Amino acid sequence: MDYNKVFCEISKSLESYHDNGKVASYIPELKKVAPIKFGVHLCTVTGENYQFGDSEEKFSIQSICKVLSLTLAFEIEQEDLWKRVGVEPSGNPFNSLVQLEYDEGIPRNPFINAGAIVVADVLVSKLENPKRDFLDFVRKLSGNNTINYSERIAQSEKSKGHRNAALCNLMKSFGNIENNIHEVIEFYFDLCSIEMTCEELARTFLFLANYGKDPISGNQIVSSSKSKRINAVMQLCGLYDEAGEFSFKVGLPGKSGVGGGIAVVHPGKYSMVVWSPRLNKKGNSNKGMQFLEEFTSYTESSIF
Amino acid sequence: MDYNKVFCEISKSLESYHDNGKVASYIPELKKVAPIKFGVHLCTVTGENYQFGDSEEKFSIQSICKVLSLTLAFEIEQEDLWKRVGVEPSGNPFNSLVQLEYDEGIPRNPFINAGAIVVADVLVSKLENPKRDFLDFVRKLSGNNTINYSERIAQSEKSKGHRNAALCNLMKSFGNIENNIHEVIEFYFDLCSIEMTCEELARTFLFLANYGKDPISGNQIVSSSKSKRINAVMQLCGLYDEAGEFSFKVGLPGKSGVGGGIAVVHPGKYSMVVWSPRLNKKGNSNKGMQFLEEFTSYTESSIF
Amino acid sequence: MDYNKVFCEISKSLESYHDNGKVASYIPELKKVAPIKFGVHLCTVTGENYQFGDSEEKFSIQSICKVLSLTLAFEIEQEDLWKRVGVEPSGNPFNSLVQLEYDEGIPRNPFINAGAIVVADVLVSKLENPKRDFLDFVRKLSGNNTINYSERIAQSEKSKGHRNAALCNLMKSFGNIENNIHEVIEFYFDLCSIEMTCEELARTFLFLANYGKDPISGNQIVSSSKSKRINAVMQLCGLYDEAGEFSFKVGLPGKSGVGGGIAVVHPGKYSMVVWSPRLNKKGNSNKGMQFLEEFTSYTESSIF
Amino acid sequence: MDYNKVFCEISKSLESYHDNGKVASYIPELKKVAPIKFGVHLCTVTGENYQFGDSEEKFSIQSICKVLSLTLAFEIEQEDLWKRVGVEPSGNPFNSLVQLEYDEGIPRNPFINAGAIVVADVLVSKLENPKRDFLDFVRKLSGNNTINYSERIAQSEKSKGHRNAALCNLMKSFGNIENNIHEVIEFYFDLCSIEMTCEELARTFLFLANYGKDPISGNQIVSSSKSKRINAVMQLCGLYDEAGEFSFKVGLPGKSGVGGGIAVVHPGKYSMVVWSPRLNKKGNSNKGMQFLEEFTSYTESSIF
Repeated sequence: MDYNKVFCEISKSLESYHDNGKVASYIPELKKVAPIKFGVHLCTVTGENYQFGDSEEKFSIQSICKVLSLTLAFEIEQEDLWKRVGVEPSGNPFNSLVQLEYDEGIPRNPFINAGAIVVADVLVSKLENPKRDFLDFVRKLSGNNTINYSERIAQSEKSKGHRNAALCNLMKSFGNIENNIHEVIEFYFDLCSIEMTCEELARTFLFLANYGKDPISGNQIVSSSKSKRINAVMQLCGLYDEAGEFSFKVGLPGKSGVGGGIAVVHPGKYSMVVWSPRLNKKGNSNKGMQFLEEFTSYTESSIF
Repeated sequence: MDYNKVFCEISKSLESYHDNGKVASYIPELKKVAPIKFGVHLCTVTGENYQFGDSEEKFSIQSICKVLSLTLAFEIEQEDLWKRVGVEPSGNPFNSLVQLEYDEGIPRNPFINAGAIVVADVLVSKLENPKRDFLDFVRKLSGNNTINYSERIAQSEKSKGHRNAALCNLMKSFGNIENNIHEVIEFYFDLCSIEMTCEELARTFLFLANYGKDPISGNQIVSSSKSKRINAVMQLCGLYDEAGEFSFKVGLPGKSGVGGGIAVVHPGKYSMVVWSPRLNKKGNSNKGMQFLEEFTSYTESSIF
Repeated sequence: MDYNKVFCEISKSLESYHDNGKVASYIPELKKVAPIKFGVHLCTVTGENYQFGDSEEKFSIQSICKVLSLTLAFEIEQEDLWKRVGVEPSGNPFNSLVQLEYDEGIPRNPFINAGAIVVADVLVSKLENPKRDFLDFVRKLSGNNTINYSERIAQSEKSKGHRNAALCNLMKSFGNIENNIHEVIEFYFDLCSIEMTCEELARTFLFLANYGKDPISGNQIVSSSKSKRINAVMQLCGLYDEAGEFSFKVGLPGKSGVGGGIAVVHPGKYSMVVWSPRLNKKGNSNKGMQFLEEFTSYTESSIF
Repeated sequence: MDYNKVFCEISKSLESYHDNGKVASYIPELKKVAPIKFGVHLCTVTGENYQFGDSEEKFSIQSICKVLSLTLAFEIEQEDLWKRVGVEPSGNPFNSLVQLEYDEGIPRNPFINAGAIVVADVLVSKLENPKRDFLDFVRKLSGNNTINYSERIAQSEKSKGHRNAALCNLMKSFGNIENNIHEVIEFYFDLCSIEMTCEELARTFLFLANYGKDPISGNQIVSSSKSKRINAVMQLCGLYDEAGEFSFKVGLPGKSGVGGGIAVVHPGKYSMVVWSPRLNKKGNSNKGMQFLEEFTSYTESSIF
């Protein structure tokens, strides 16, 4: 299918779309991005690439990185990982403490902040040099050695991290954090600070569209079974408190970040990243969701 | 694929499986079923049928019927339906009042009790003779005019319905129930009392495996887009508070009932029903989930 | 002390008080009252009476009646009553279902709606003719045979009673309601519909200011110990979610109603009723609270 | 009244009382105390003293100290204090995060952990040397310069303080903590580590039984109005989630601690401290509550 043509048509149809979303402003660094930015990149498992707009511009991938840290932690811990974090949607705003207290320190899933902090704790325990080793893993996935953390973004987050420190302390009080709280939180903010372009990020997610095997490098990143399970977790928990809405309208496993990016995969077919910084009230890219809804309707390519 | 062979092999592997689940006992009629029952039926979209065990024995489909009432209400109300009920997983036990109060009378999704009661209210408003007309709809889907309600089961439920009456009254206080509470609750319990065999139920769900079109009769029951959306809601909300676990392990849209049935669909491929009355703590068939997990692993046929 | 003089001085100081409260409007009958009404009546245990303003005008005592139904149910059930209802403040808005579900059908205290419904259920079980017998009890307390229910108010409430029916059904599902739901709810709304003047209501509460003994008639209504306990429950739970604020500022056991009345007692000294229909956001009389705060400051007569 | 005789009689009646409570064990230092300890001391406002049992043995006053830190912070901040902490009972276990999140970082009252941490934060902001200056204040109240912190207890708490750090971080994220979290938490644990005998503690609370004026030294510690308000907060919030039960049975303003102490005051009459280390499930001294219930029944001296 000529996805370039599809991108053009949908973009045209979205021209009149009034985007009343707000760029994330809880840290100054995120607020600096131009709200008008819009990019798309799609990689097929057969090696074709399609792009549109600002697809070669770097943005802060933020929570989308939680899929990558989950992938590495799942590979390291295997099924033991699920003793410390669940796979159920949260049914609550993405950083709520209520659920965590009710469930005695076991986060509902690895994509809410608490769950991603547990995953970070696993990596701090098991990697020799967490910050370096994780970056190596992402570079391998993306086939790109220039991918990096943003110190600016990480610093900005760290100065506002009291709520995540609260989560981390609460889990520590329940015995679900192994390492020093400060170290875990710092690493967690480093993870979220990675910057990529739509193209780089779609490329990075390609193994999840191909049953765990990177079709370009030929590397089997994770088993087919693990790839399916990571996609299932994305489907159920990938868009904060809007996972149902996203499944209903878009129908693909996906993960969003407050930087305005959304990564989706269609198993057996393609990975795709869309980026538009204005967020809706649930913290997901407004235009990104709209674009994806029209895309899967147009191409009739949801998984359902 | 020779699914009969697969069924045999998995059944053999499950012989040593110790099922510590409990048959539903909150109403006397459900408790009467033999815990040892086990049946499977699979229909492909190309018209093949595979079965195993007690697949031709009637059981109470209970909440699985909520997919059928949703289908009819969605067809009648179109997008307006979603003003009265959400599509988000509940993150709470299946009949909790907490979420409903927080969300001011709008149930999280059409498969929790409150949501299914709203769907029943829609049908009471819009059908000339709700009980008769809904049964006609189910008979048409199943291609079987002998399908019927169980008066015994319905009566048994009605005598224990205080909690559902509480939900209904609460929603009425928020203005989200149009009809007389007694009438809505009675109809809701009638819906849940329908009895089918695995074979009949799998046949009934076949249109959802075929993009809304019944491949046997050729009837387009709902549009392809609606079919995808109903499947998406099943994926996110179909197994009470275990939707994440089910997606993670089985990887298909599905809906369970306290009668021990689970119906799943693989879009483009098949519908399947498994029935085993012992339930786990979340109210889902223990052996049914186990069987489905092994089935999709064996056949590598999850949607992810 | 010359309370008439105190009333005059405080009233004068309140002349410039801008009351932005709202008259209760959830039922049409309550909305009809003139917002400007203001009355006070104080009875001492030695038989003196002091009044101010509209103290001889009838108003709907609403939830204040819950103290009287509690008194009668406590006398009938003795300590067994506390198996079915607690004595802890609710920490939640006055008609929340959340707490009730968490505590498995046992209301936190007899003054939240759920608790008062349980008390009503006790009276329905134990009185020969609940509506008549309860009214006889209130008439005896007040020494006034003209006290009566308001059919208009009761009817108005009954047409809006879905939320209370939800509470009642929920408790019935937990086994904490013995009688027919309809009958209990009807009786509950009858109770709340009683009308009295400030004078009559202060007179009615006088036994609670005198260790359970009505100093006028000489009747020992309840034991000294029970009187103290009822006052303790008022202190902790009598003003919905504002019991702390009321204790902090006024420092007397009291009970409010959405009709704008507040009844307080100073054990060993006096009972007093103030009435002003404008309510604050917590559902308590705005000017009534203000008046009482100034009154106990002026007279230095809080119990603390 | 000859309170010594009353003490003896109640103690005799309690001899057969089977105390199934548990000594606090969450920190090793508290666990070391002999469970059999039992002491009482009562000071009247006229200078009489009555004691029983182990009333001259030091114990860890723990949360009882929150009344003293509140007193000092209220005196320093005046009414501004109540912008940062409420006066409503919590309706939740004493260290729950749920309420705090719902109320956006404003603790329900100064006696739940979160509220006491806010009070500690106020003192850290306003005292030149918080640890020294607060101790001076307590020594002045008690008329005893040997009162001191226990470094052992404080250290033991600090090593287990993740949950309180979570509370503190959460409040900081809402802007309700001014100082460095580590500093505030350390000071909070110092406060809780103070050790006193029943005699010393009853003496320390005497000003609250005498309208803010220490009748021995003649010092007006706080105004009569403040004293009444502090007592009101104790009445409503002083016994964790058992404030209602305590009011109902004992009928005096009081404050408990996990060291097994309970301090109560009867305004105008006396202050009293009872100490017995075995705690009930709500964290309050089992035998202490029983003793106080019998004491106020016997002497008919509740405030209601």
